[in-house]
Amino acid sequence: MPAKLKTAVMGATGYSGFELTRILLRHPLVDFPELLSRSAEGNANLADLFPALSGNGRYPLKPLSWSALKDQGVKLLFLATPHEASRALVPEAVANGLRVIDLSGAWRLRNPEYRAVYGFKDEGSKAAAEYTDKAVYGLPELNRDKIADATVVANPGCYATTVILALAPLLKADVVDKSKGIISDSKSGVSGAGKEPTARTHFVSVADNLSAYGLFGHRHLGEILEQLDLNDSELTFTPHLLPIPRGILSTIYLQLKSAMTAAQIEAIFRDFYQGKRWVRVFANPKLPEIQFSVNTNYCDLGFALAKDGRRLIVVSCEDNLLKGAAGQAVQNMNLMYGFDEAEGLQ
Amino acid sequence: MPAKLKTAVMGATGYSGFELTRILLRHPLVDFPELLSRSAEGNANLADLFPALSGNGRYPLKPLSWSALKDQGVKLLFLATPHEASRALVPEAVANGLRVIDLSGAWRLRNPEYRAVYGFKDEGSKAAAEYTDKAVYGLPELNRDKIADATVVANPGCYATTVILALAPLLKADVVDKSKGIISDSKSGVSGAGKEPTARTHFVSVADNLSAYGLFGHRHLGEILEQLDLNDSELTFTPHLLPIPRGILSTIYLQLKSAMTAAQIEAIFRDFYQGKRWVRVFANPKLPEIQFSVNTNYCDLGFALAKDGRRLIVVSCEDNLLKGAAGQAVQNMNLMYGFDEAEGLQ
Amino acid sequence: MPAKLKTAVMGATGYSGFELTRILLRHPLVDFPELLSRSAEGNANLADLFPALSGNGRYPLKPLSWSALKDQGVKLLFLATPHEASRALVPEAVANGLRVIDLSGAWRLRNPEYRAVYGFKDEGSKAAAEYTDKAVYGLPELNRDKIADATVVANPGCYATTVILALAPLLKADVVDKSKGIISDSKSGVSGAGKEPTARTHFVSVADNLSAYGLFGHRHLGEILEQLDLNDSELTFTPHLLPIPRGILSTIYLQLKSAMTAAQIEAIFRDFYQGKRWVRVFANPKLPEIQFSVNTNYCDLGFALAKDGRRLIVVSCEDNLLKGAAGQAVQNMNLMYGFDEAEGLQ
Amino acid sequence: MPAKLKTAVMGATGYSGFELTRILLRHPLVDFPELLSRSAEGNANLADLFPALSGNGRYPLKPLSWSALKDQGVKLLFLATPHEASRALVPEAVANGLRVIDLSGAWRLRNPEYRAVYGFKDEGSKAAAEYTDKAVYGLPELNRDKIADATVVANPGCYATTVILALAPLLKADVVDKSKGIISDSKSGVSGAGKEPTARTHFVSVADNLSAYGLFGHRHLGEILEQLDLNDSELTFTPHLLPIPRGILSTIYLQLKSAMTAAQIEAIFRDFYQGKRWVRVFANPKLPEIQFSVNTNYCDLGFALAKDGRRLIVVSCEDNLLKGAAGQAVQNMNLMYGFDEAEGLQ
Repeated sequence: MPAKLKTAVMGATGYSGFELTRILLRHPLVDFPELLSRSAEGNANLADLFPALSGNGRYPLKPLSWSALKDQGVKLLFLATPHEASRALVPEAVANGLRVIDLSGAWRLRNPEYRAVYGFKDEGSKAAAEYTDKAVYGLPELNRDKIADATVVANPGCYATTVILALAPLLKADVVDKSKGIISDSKSGVSGAGKEPTARTHFVSVADNLSAYGLFGHRHLGEILEQLDLNDSELTFTPHLLPIPRGILSTIYLQLKSAMTAAQIEAIFRDFYQGKRWVRVFANPKLPEIQFSVNTNYCDLGFALAKDGRRLIVVSCEDNLLKGAAGQAVQNMNLMYGFDEAEGLQ
Repeated sequence: MPAKLKTAVMGATGYSGFELTRILLRHPLVDFPELLSRSAEGNANLADLFPALSGNGRYPLKPLSWSALKDQGVKLLFLATPHEASRALVPEAVANGLRVIDLSGAWRLRNPEYRAVYGFKDEGSKAAAEYTDKAVYGLPELNRDKIADATVVANPGCYATTVILALAPLLKADVVDKSKGIISDSKSGVSGAGKEPTARTHFVSVADNLSAYGLFGHRHLGEILEQLDLNDSELTFTPHLLPIPRGILSTIYLQLKSAMTAAQIEAIFRDFYQGKRWVRVFANPKLPEIQFSVNTNYCDLGFALAKDGRRLIVVSCEDNLLKGAAGQAVQNMNLMYGFDEAEGLQ
Repeated sequence: MPAKLKTAVMGATGYSGFELTRILLRHPLVDFPELLSRSAEGNANLADLFPALSGNGRYPLKPLSWSALKDQGVKLLFLATPHEASRALVPEAVANGLRVIDLSGAWRLRNPEYRAVYGFKDEGSKAAAEYTDKAVYGLPELNRDKIADATVVANPGCYATTVILALAPLLKADVVDKSKGIISDSKSGVSGAGKEPTARTHFVSVADNLSAYGLFGHRHLGEILEQLDLNDSELTFTPHLLPIPRGILSTIYLQLKSAMTAAQIEAIFRDFYQGKRWVRVFANPKLPEIQFSVNTNYCDLGFALAKDGRRLIVVSCEDNLLKGAAGQAVQNMNLMYGFDEAEGLQ
Repeated sequence: MPAKLKTAVMGATGYSGFELTRILLRHPLVDFPELLSRSAEGNANLADLFPALSGNGRYPLKPLSWSALKDQGVKLLFLATPHEASRALVPEAVANGLRVIDLSGAWRLRNPEYRAVYGFKDEGSKAAAEYTDKAVYGLPELNRDKIADATVVANPGCYATTVILALAPLLKADVVDKSKGIISDSKSGVSGAGKEPTARTHFVSVADNLSAYGLFGHRHLGEILEQLDLNDSELTFTPHLLPIPRGILSTIYLQLKSAMTAAQIEAIFRDFYQGKRWVRVFANPKLPEIQFSVNTNYCDLGFALAKDGRRLIVVSCEDNLLKGAAGQAVQNMNLMYGFDEAEGLQ
């Protein structure tokens, strides 16, 4: 039996980092991960922050040390850190011989206009250019081969995953009339907003409520445009905050170049996702709901076609912490190390 | 002091009927309403069904009797009944000298194609034609004068109210490029689905979930098209079921004929709703949220305009049981009897 | 028509202060209240913080100035401030000729042992002793006459209100076997934890969860013991955090001195609350639920008696922001100024 | 590699039955289970009822046939059926050579007084007496050895599991003053009420609410009394319906015979649960919350002790569909077939 893969998780105390840790802990081909935290002190223990782990053993949190990671034989570093931290850590990690899967938005974008919304401090530097080039956008259903060989994987955004997976088959089949505009009305649970307590994530602000935000300016917009090779005027993306802990549903509206049948549309999806383990295409007229994919690594797709055969609505759902973050990161790891794509994710 | 208006409520045991009853009970110009229920027996008491009323007195539920209503001096009958019941009751009520506000979809539609989705059994009859003509669509912000004189008011649908109020100003100003298609992605709390326990309204089905339904075929679609004089291909309307008890948010996407400024858009809304008590226009870039209008009779409107000045998103919110049902019914009553439009609704 | 009462609200930006402001705004015998806030600056507007007020006019927030309050003819000051702030403000307000209703825990307790949990900085000072004496515990169902004449009213805690109103009739009737111990297992919505965003009030921490806290040491315990003249070993009080925005349900367990009938128990409650407008006694075996009292000023009481006639469970519900805070404050104001106890609260 | 265990699940379409099916589907030592349903017809497919399974293969539902089960080599039958159905099916199953784990309340009780609340139609029959004798109460932490040899396992009630596991160590250590009365104030998510849509499980009835029910008369009371050898006057058990899909928290109040320390209490729990895989004892003063055990098979226990060393509160949490139903059933299966107690449950 070969040695298990040795990994480390930086930022295990956030929602995505914790979810990632839980998956790695039960992944049969991965060793107990090193858990790193900037603020870690002497006796820090992940089980103190997430009592769901209590009684299952010790989960010590350690400060980051490149030499310690080398000594422990760590090969792969997951970064579940804010994007500014990831901008700094990725070059260091690679210089220290590690492969990296970064869950932040730090290295997802090649188009500098789309990056502007992040305001990266190192923008324009040589390292920034080099690692922008090096990073592979980690959406396995689109980039499987590049991911397998990547040193740096930029794990996709949660919203972006639902929209790209819904649209990629139709755009590849060249059936979309982009001139009419594509709209993604997306709704996410609150864990997508992060663990930081704010007025916006206070229970009383969210419960019994729904709100739209980031209209025409959300960070994931550039990512979707770049991956789908759309220009800004061709896609409108509106996120909403749902009163649920986790899950995303995107309702995506587009018009077809010419009238089609539901069977033709379904065939486009089925062909594209043939053999792709973590996307489920629902048989028309069934539609996915958030509950169906929560606590799984699936992105679920369904659609409805107007009688005119031209107006198409695609409904795309996922668990924002799994297929939208930690699950997809593990799926990427599986590809990078030649494991089965489903390993540890069932 | 003039005598108070004597009213009756048929269907006081449903969500809308109960909400209506609560408003009427505290309306200063309305007498204690007669509470009618098909299934009422000897000692039926609304407070037994809605214990929120307990301790506030007796709320006897009586079977419907036209002669009893006449004896009690009832002038106005509210119908919070299923649409088939309303089809039968409205002609009888008018024949018995009553004015009627019907909260169902029975009499909202003139276009027979739009009515087809209801499958009314009396379709084609003389009475059906007569009362279709007679009924006034009870959206006060559009039809104030007709409502004042109406014998039969067809109270609008909850979704329809949010969409029509959001679009009417822009369509009247003739700034919308209808050829690009208008989309309303609408989300409603569960009370909109009625009080009947079903697999779909079970707590476990709704909580932690979001689902789209009625794609390209919801009953409220025809109502919106008819009131806004749009054809079917110009509007796509998609309702979703939110895990909250009450409230609707519609996110409405459209393209303008030519580039405009946010100030111009805001002016169109402000002009249209000048002096209209129950619509609040939010100052750009503020957006309404469901919480802001719940437990009020307001429809709240806000918007965002893309940098291109062409793509416009309107966000429209209301409490589906108030401005979307019972509150609007009382607003209509206020107009019909010359009361202040806000009476009893503050 | 007599001049309306002029009031001021300090702390209108918190949950209780905002709820109070909304009641005062529609109270027919009260003038538009002065809205005060420590952090108020030039253009501060309550409607910016609570957009539910948008479109209803201007709600300027001003810094506190005793001379300005005098100039405006303010007679009554509501304090919806943290308890330390109330310790400082109450003596100043009285010195400036105002009557005060304080919604904090600052002046509720006479027993210094019970006060210890607050750690008041002015403990032992002459002013502290003087105002502790002066303050009247503002539970109208127990202290109606004293409240009418009070200069300083200490508005009760939200949990304490449910427990005291449930137990007072039984203790007065001397039917409780205190030696067996009384238990109040209480559950509150999140608004009771205040508006400050914390890890504990984050939506993801609260949703789909229930947690007990403050076991054997919650601040409201002393208040209950003092008002009911119990000693610490006779009452166990355990609060829990419910995944709902507002409302409290206390399930209270006690044993009777001798076997009784349900009719006898119900009579004790009915006698005690005869003529008391804001307590509803449910007819056995009906029990109150949180929904029944939310958005009302009622405290609802119901009970179940074991077959042995000895073990009694009382269920007590209220809206923690109304009967548990702002509504009760207005009820107290009504008593202090000779208004009907229900004025402005229906 | 030995052949996998062949099982069947009757009632896979309910919440517990579906949860059980999901566990069995990924259990490494169990074959694909036969899925049985009374109402199954030709093409019935569990994935149609629970779309979370969609895309994962076919899940045919079949009508029950004893001969077919025999032909398929089924050894163990799980019954996730209503208790009346289980009364009839258990004797038939045993007569057909099967071992049975019954998730209903049909065979849990030996004391006929406690059984009376169920009103079993076969009460008094010879078969009823025989199978009441034969059935083993399936709480592995108490009855491990008997379960291993059992032909019929009566899987415990969800509430009962939390209460029995919290109290058994203390009662065994004989430190509880039963004369003062023990109280379990228990709160459950809605899945515990079953999948049948009713007025009580309607989203609008449950959301933003909390209600107590079944006071002094819930079915699980007898089960707790019998297992803990308490009499009715010694335990008061009150369930409440929480606005969450799953999870139970029981707050349990008792008095000790003499003053003890927290360390002594913790030692009692730790000794009792030493080596018991699915109970986690929290280190004092940490307390479990519902979120910590949801989606796991753990029962979590924590406690608080009053300063007097006499009054003790135990907090007990579990996922009502896992440790409270399907997970515990699989734990029992693991014991019955000599598997590791954690197999398939991690």
